[in-house]
Amino acid sequence: MKPGRCLCVCVLLVLSMAGNGNGGNILVWFTEGSHWINLKPVLEALIDRGHQVTVLVPSSSLFMNASEPSRFHYEPFNSSVPLEVWEEIIEEFIHFSIYEMDYLSYIQIHIKFLEIAKKEVKFTLQHLDSMVRSDTMARLREGKFDLMLADPIYPGSELVAEVLDLPLVYTLRFSIAHTWERLCGQLPAPPSYVPGAMSKLTDKMDFMDRLWNFLFYASQDMFAYHGKTSHFLQWKPTSACELMGKAEIWLIRTYWDFDFPRPFLPNFKFVGGIHCKPAKPLPEDLEEFVQSSGDAGIVVFTLGTMVTNMTAERRDMIASALAQIPQKVLWRYSGEKPKTLGANTKLYDWIPQNDLLGHPKTRAFITHGGTNGIYEAIYHGVPMVGIPMFADQPDNMVHMKAKGAALIMEFNFMETEDLVKALKAVINEPSYKENAMRLSRIHHDRPIKPLDEAVFWVEFTMRNKGAKHLRVQTHELTWYQYHSLDVFAFLLAVTLFITVLFIKTCSFCIRRCCCRKGKTKTKAE
Amino acid sequence: MKPGRCLCVCVLLVLSMAGNGNGGNILVWFTEGSHWINLKPVLEALIDRGHQVTVLVPSSSLFMNASEPSRFHYEPFNSSVPLEVWEEIIEEFIHFSIYEMDYLSYIQIHIKFLEIAKKEVKFTLQHLDSMVRSDTMARLREGKFDLMLADPIYPGSELVAEVLDLPLVYTLRFSIAHTWERLCGQLPAPPSYVPGAMSKLTDKMDFMDRLWNFLFYASQDMFAYHGKTSHFLQWKPTSACELMGKAEIWLIRTYWDFDFPRPFLPNFKFVGGIHCKPAKPLPEDLEEFVQSSGDAGIVVFTLGTMVTNMTAERRDMIASALAQIPQKVLWRYSGEKPKTLGANTKLYDWIPQNDLLGHPKTRAFITHGGTNGIYEAIYHGVPMVGIPMFADQPDNMVHMKAKGAALIMEFNFMETEDLVKALKAVINEPSYKENAMRLSRIHHDRPIKPLDEAVFWVEFTMRNKGAKHLRVQTHELTWYQYHSLDVFAFLLAVTLFITVLFIKTCSFCIRRCCCRKGKTKTKAE
Repeated sequence: MKPGRCLCVCVLLVLSMAGNGNGGNILVWFTEGSHWINLKPVLEALIDRGHQVTVLVPSSSLFMNASEPSRFHYEPFNSSVPLEVWEEIIEEFIHFSIYEMDYLSYIQIHIKFLEIAKKEVKFTLQHLDSMVRSDTMARLREGKFDLMLADPIYPGSELVAEVLDLPLVYTLRFSIAHTWERLCGQLPAPPSYVPGAMSKLTDKMDFMDRLWNFLFYASQDMFAYHGKTSHFLQWKPTSACELMGKAEIWLIRTYWDFDFPRPFLPNFKFVGGIHCKPAKPLPEDLEEFVQSSGDAGIVVFTLGTMVTNMTAERRDMIASALAQIPQKVLWRYSGEKPKTLGANTKLYDWIPQNDLLGHPKTRAFITHGGTNGIYEAIYHGVPMVGIPMFADQPDNMVHMKAKGAALIMEFNFMETEDLVKALKAVINEPSYKENAMRLSRIHHDRPIKPLDEAVFWVEFTMRNKGAKHLRVQTHELTWYQYHSLDVFAFLLAVTLFITVLFIKTCSFCIRRCCCRKGKTKTKAE
Repeated sequence: MKPGRCLCVCVLLVLSMAGNGNGGNILVWFTEGSHWINLKPVLEALIDRGHQVTVLVPSSSLFMNASEPSRFHYEPFNSSVPLEVWEEIIEEFIHFSIYEMDYLSYIQIHIKFLEIAKKEVKFTLQHLDSMVRSDTMARLREGKFDLMLADPIYPGSELVAEVLDLPLVYTLRFSIAHTWERLCGQLPAPPSYVPGAMSKLTDKMDFMDRLWNFLFYASQDMFAYHGKTSHFLQWKPTSACELMGKAEIWLIRTYWDFDFPRPFLPNFKFVGGIHCKPAKPLPEDLEEFVQSSGDAGIVVFTLGTMVTNMTAERRDMIASALAQIPQKVLWRYSGEKPKTLGANTKLYDWIPQNDLLGHPKTRAFITHGGTNGIYEAIYHGVPMVGIPMFADQPDNMVHMKAKGAALIMEFNFMETEDLVKALKAVINEPSYKENAMRLSRIHHDRPIKPLDEAVFWVEFTMRNKGAKHLRVQTHELTWYQYHSLDVFAFLLAVTLFITVLFIKTCSFCIRRCCCRKGKTKTKAE
């Protein structure tokens, strides 16, 4: 009963050996931030296997750099939306999420998010319009591509794939309340046990949770459906949702180590942890600091690339908590130095996060709860203390807490002793490490590695010019047909008809009987 | 863009290389006929990988022979139900299906099937009782098994797994209308696009089809649920369905080459085609006959192991049809020789079916439509003419016809010219061969071979003493919670309450206003 690791290694070996000849021509939609980090290994693997990869890059990209030397062919296009606009939107979103949201009511938060989303959609469509109307489209037409690979979080790929008549493969972490997956991809998700993404619920829901989840689905559907039906009308007489529904494969970037088990469809592949890899040795100075921790070990701490600074009060509070634990702490933080920084804590502008998480001395990971970081912790079996900041981070940490591998802190409300207590629990109570190791086993022990699976389905779609045999027939049904409401209505009508007929017949018979009796009586009298 | 074959071969290689040390101890529930044929390769592979396999065999088994030399360890037990009883039931079922059913109404068929099923259940429970009460149980307790592997079509494995506290892995082709998978395994199956097994429907359904499918599900559920809740009560205070729901993994013996795409759960693995393998060279005399067919090629014809004879009229009709095609025909038939047998047709008591289907000269396969035979035809890309006889065969052939790889004949009603026409179409119209080859590509082009996938999940369950991370939370919900009916009821109640409150308030206000006016009026008067 050997674990599946050697099997996975061999699959990878064969995949890379097979990478020559018959290369495909893949067009990749632009993306940003952690999405780009996650997409890159897939593109690298595709290039290793002899395919040509062309990546669309808008002039106002925040994270992609079309002029840096790379194995990808970059296809830049001028966007009418300047970089500053995107920076402003993101800054506004992050600042609101971290510093304002906690003090507002649900309605106020919803209104603010709608406002930001509206602005984002407006600029995204402008952005897309610059591309569709530019000479880039003519170049893409000449490019003779075999496939479009896209993260639908940056809309437009479905439109361009339709115009260029390319099979489309999605790579997606989630949409809010899984609206796109459900409404466009026809993924079934009973609200009774599939918590909507961003709902901060688990799959174990009491009545109030299920009520909330139901309303969350319903409200998000109304909002998302409106957007997804109207956005593309200026270019094509079709809805964005219909175009999204044409995606051949949805590569979902989670697995059952992170997500709660749920129903899915044959063209949904769960490939969470694509970017994970074994730890490399640390640079000498880092290794020295790590080794100086002795038996106590180290704690790795980062709040991600988006949060670079924080208020003096918060950083001092955190630093004084870190100073109270026996572990050495490596804190990725480029803001002002906290006054209370302990001798055991070192600040770094950047850390080799994966290599540190894979180090045998690592005892815990303090994280903002981004999916990529969590997946590295799962890969190496490291328990976590989450300080979620924005977007899906709170929801991600709820998953890890539910699986017993993490504790959650609230950035604005936690105090020094809360953080110390959480860190001590996660490091000293064996259940957290055990659960982290259990998730790690689930992550590694699968028939095929996530990266190999992603590459396989991209190549399958190219080889077969689609994956229609995985496409459910629901796409051709209306919502009332899907839920058998017309069948219900018919059966109800038939039942009612029979009941009425029965009552009428009975009453007719009774009346006839009575009449006769009446007549007989009269006669007798 | 190379196909996935080399990958699969390598996976198999690694799987077999890894087969030493740490062997598990697997208990296998008894099974029969084509189910046993399909299970054997999995057991062989498990033995190759160093596991010990013990197979339970009742004394009244039709197909299993505990005394034949084998790599499995057989564990025989005395059944209180003699072999003749089983033979009688099967004979009755087959005779009714082939010769009587076609001339009866749906209600008459249903009543007859219920009668046979009732008899079968009675004897199955007797059979099971002999095992549970025998000293076999004591021996099994001492056997220190790691896992129970079972085809639930022969009930009882779930009860014995519960008693022995073993993780349970199912291998299943289907249950009628997927009742077990749905009711016990919690597999979602919207009746609007998932045709119930045995319904003879496809995933493309018009209103009447969907109505029929809905009623088919409902009627089967009532029947199956009653049985599954009451059967085991004599031994354990639990329902069979609850015990079935504890199965860690369901290895479903189809894939999207055969089945219509449908929603499924993380612990349902589609491993159709487990027994398929490349063709071996034919014996000399067979090869000579096959080669004598020239460019016209051959047709392979078998109605399976269960049908050995037929009426003179039917066999003569079939033989005269076969005599009219230019192909040579190899007919597996051990009954009386037809009078009209053509020079191009040879009868055989047994044929190497897989080797013939994989022969380059094979143009078509005339089949009764058993899943194993169909899968061999899919594996080798051979178009089919189906003459379905009983059980799932009509439904199987509907699948193949819907996918454009087969035509269907009705055994009792087809005439010579119908069969000739069907054979000529399947052989000469390119679409049938093209579709058969398309299904073959789908079959071969998957990330992992079905046998390897089955073995992987059996071993995973042993390694991890279960596969709880794949188990959906639905198992803990009631049916009304699952369908969110309590949430609906609550929302309806709240809406009604608010509406009534609103109306009452309005009418109160209006009345007050009116009263005042009235009073004012009176005063004024």
